[in-house]
Amino acid sequence: MAAGFSFALRCGDRDTLARLGRLETPHGAVDTPVFMPVGTLGTVKGMTNDQVWSTGATLILGNTYHLALRPGSEQIAQLGGLHRFMNWPGPILTDSGGFQIFSLSQCSKISEQGAVFQSHIDGRRLELTPEESIRIQEQLGSDIAMVLDHVIALPAELPAVADAMERSTRWAARCLNIASRNDQAKFAIVQGGLDIALRRLSAKALTQMPFDGYAVGGLSVGEPPPEMYRILSAITPCLPEEKPRYLMGVGRPIDLLEGIARGIDMFDCVMPTRNGRNALAFTWQGPLRMRNAKHANDESPIDPSCPCLACRHSRAYIRHLFIAGEMLGPILLTHHNLTFYQILMSQARQNIAAGTYAGWLNEQRLTLEGQRVAS
Amino acid sequence: MAAGFSFALRCGDRDTLARLGRLETPHGAVDTPVFMPVGTLGTVKGMTNDQVWSTGATLILGNTYHLALRPGSEQIAQLGGLHRFMNWPGPILTDSGGFQIFSLSQCSKISEQGAVFQSHIDGRRLELTPEESIRIQEQLGSDIAMVLDHVIALPAELPAVADAMERSTRWAARCLNIASRNDQAKFAIVQGGLDIALRRLSAKALTQMPFDGYAVGGLSVGEPPPEMYRILSAITPCLPEEKPRYLMGVGRPIDLLEGIARGIDMFDCVMPTRNGRNALAFTWQGPLRMRNAKHANDESPIDPSCPCLACRHSRAYIRHLFIAGEMLGPILLTHHNLTFYQILMSQARQNIAAGTYAGWLNEQRLTLEGQRVAS
Repeated sequence: MAAGFSFALRCGDRDTLARLGRLETPHGAVDTPVFMPVGTLGTVKGMTNDQVWSTGATLILGNTYHLALRPGSEQIAQLGGLHRFMNWPGPILTDSGGFQIFSLSQCSKISEQGAVFQSHIDGRRLELTPEESIRIQEQLGSDIAMVLDHVIALPAELPAVADAMERSTRWAARCLNIASRNDQAKFAIVQGGLDIALRRLSAKALTQMPFDGYAVGGLSVGEPPPEMYRILSAITPCLPEEKPRYLMGVGRPIDLLEGIARGIDMFDCVMPTRNGRNALAFTWQGPLRMRNAKHANDESPIDPSCPCLACRHSRAYIRHLFIAGEMLGPILLTHHNLTFYQILMSQARQNIAAGTYAGWLNEQRLTLEGQRVAS
Repeated sequence: MAAGFSFALRCGDRDTLARLGRLETPHGAVDTPVFMPVGTLGTVKGMTNDQVWSTGATLILGNTYHLALRPGSEQIAQLGGLHRFMNWPGPILTDSGGFQIFSLSQCSKISEQGAVFQSHIDGRRLELTPEESIRIQEQLGSDIAMVLDHVIALPAELPAVADAMERSTRWAARCLNIASRNDQAKFAIVQGGLDIALRRLSAKALTQMPFDGYAVGGLSVGEPPPEMYRILSAITPCLPEEKPRYLMGVGRPIDLLEGIARGIDMFDCVMPTRNGRNALAFTWQGPLRMRNAKHANDESPIDPSCPCLACRHSRAYIRHLFIAGEMLGPILLTHHNLTFYQILMSQARQNIAAGTYAGWLNEQRLTLEGQRVAS
């Protein structure tokens, strides 16, 4: 692995593929399975660093495409890199911009060379080749860099899925070839849509290259959750046991637990933060919509056992903040949801360590199912 | 004074009317001169309670008119009062709605009975008589309630100013007459525009009634600062030495210091919070507009000696947050500005105690003058 990195598996689970690990990085250790809060533009929206840290988060995610546009990677490099720029002491993973090829497809064009974006901010041209994505991520100085991949919308015709997968493989090789920082881990991304044969081809090609970890990309883009689980079940056994596995952009609490059961170690998603800003609170009994009138006179907190900043207040107060359009509503629910996700991961790790993961997962399937909300 | 209240003057200044005091309330003691952050709707905008507290604030202000509309004083009473509703452990002062007669004049009508508002939210009718204002404030359960006053825009014709002042005096008597909570201090409000004779008449009438404190209202509504200072110089000597004096809605850092020199003990203003949300940072050398391009590559903090959350970051990072429209920009600058105002008050108190206030004020006049920004 890259300098300063190691990944040690501490134990596995008898009944599932769940595993407990520790990822060492130049900015500290991370117990896996881990959930990474999304800090798109050098800030987890609405949170101070202290607040993010107090949820239990250590590893966070930054978005290469967005940071390249604002404030620009040259500027961040001049200011000492992303850690120093945002004053985050823990490890940072940066994505590659590949997801924006999908999510901002109306302003991007793909060729074998790379993606050309018209900035969604001011129309300015941004060419994101595999080489440029790595160059930007090296300027940002993240601990873990992702290869540029070609993410497409699903469902799609098989030839289009195969084409994007094969291009992603060629781009991964170009990323590895150009990378020059020894202190930055490089993760490849398995593509291939919902086709297991294509996914296996992708995994086989990528695992022949010396990456530090392997991600599963192109999921949670609209397909039903069982489809995602089916792909994961087929693919994680094709990935090297000794390297961390990252399921990108996922997801709902139950999706994280199902991913862990299939051997995934790392997750990121905007769901806890974005939904928090939109008045949705995750709980062990399913989500609560905090603008609902039924909370208007409710003196109880969202979850009396939760240590977050929101749960020092009544549901009535939280509802009032959202009805009145006060910033504190999004702030408190973001802190609550990030805390919930971290406790969810902590309990998953404890259950793996105790050998009780399968039974615990079954219980959560019954109670967290209410969590099926639009992302 | 009301039960649980006392006001002790600890020392005065030789060369000015500045005074050091301690106001005891049922929710704790407050060293004066004091600045109260504004928490209009049960939240200091963008701040958690911990963050407000960490600036050094103890006494905060809530707005009767706004809380009466959302979520309503009955609801807050059912939920245990404003302290419990917003989970603020320190003392709270509530205004009376009199300022909204001025600031929302396009949706209010005045008669001798009181003010009738059409809600600025949904057009609903809200009648705010002196009796109703006290009833609402008693339901909110603030430590200090203000009398309903008739605030008018300046400049105004003398008869109109006299009429509003005389009505304010009659309303003050009605407030005192209806008040039933023994654990809530009642403060009167001196009116009379920029006319010293009217102001003196107002002060004379109000100080004959047994109020717990006296405010100067109807200032900082557009008049030049020297006019405000002139009124203060004339009026504070007419107020009882042994009771706290509160200059409402003021103001710029230098205005606070000039007010202190004229014997004022208490201040509130939205300036640190509202300007913080709009990217303006107060400093001892004058204000900084943090969206300015000159900060784009500046690694230094706003103020290296400031203990606030913003000053852990570079000016470049703060600017980036505002340019990118991130919530963290307003959050950090609100914390910075509230911290600045509290340190300003702390230094004022130290200089009064040391007998050096006049000289210190002169220094600040030279450096804080840059603080003349639009409120």
